[in-house]
Amino acid sequence: MLNNSSKLDLLFQALADPGRRGMVERLSRGPASVSELAAPLDMTLSAVVQHLAVLEASGIVRSEKVGRVRTCKIEPEALSLVELWVNERRTNWERKLDRLGEFLAIAPKDEGSKS
Amino acid sequence: MLNNSSKLDLLFQALADPGRRGMVERLSRGPASVSELAAPLDMTLSAVVQHLAVLEASGIVRSEKVGRVRTCKIEPEALSLVELWVNERRTNWERKLDRLGEFLAIAPKDEGSKS
Repeated sequence: MLNNSSKLDLLFQALADPGRRGMVERLSRGPASVSELAAPLDMTLSAVVQHLAVLEASGIVRSEKVGRVRTCKIEPEALSLVELWVNERRTNWERKLDRLGEFLAIAPKDEGSKS
Repeated sequence: MLNNSSKLDLLFQALADPGRRGMVERLSRGPASVSELAAPLDMTLSAVVQHLAVLEASGIVRSEKVGRVRTCKIEPEALSLVELWVNERRTNWERKLDRLGEFLAIAPKDEGSKS
């Protein structure tokens, strides 16, 4: 079992490539076979298969072979993990700014009441 | 100027390392000098500086040198770009599922009215 930090390493790594993001984008609109995934992309089928392997290793994509067709679909929980990590850091920072804002809003009032 | 796709390449790449995510985590709680950033991390100052360069190139972190102290802070817009990309893919997928749910909820009713 991977811990969350190792999972995030693989997830961010998987999303760092525009071709792989294109595949996630396509799969976010519904499941697709490997050849459907490859069709709009300007890369060889072998490159598509390699990118898929990276996406599957990260947990963002799952695929299943039925007969001769491998169908790929997105794993929304994996995307949620990425989203949550980024959201928590951004909101931490915004909360920090809000506290600074409150401090600045109070400070001049105190100053005024003294004069 | 980088386009959004190249920006996302650099952003996801920057976040794919646990040490760099630790630095972003720290900076989300407020600005810090390079040595404050390095203090809790189990890495050399030179490694910290290299990671910082990756974070700055991606736009997640900005730093400014005043006198002899370089202060680093987070750029929330860069985090928002990552968050938005992931959120849009996840919600695309959920909308797809909702439509499937509506279809399945309607389907048996139609079946029932026919019998």
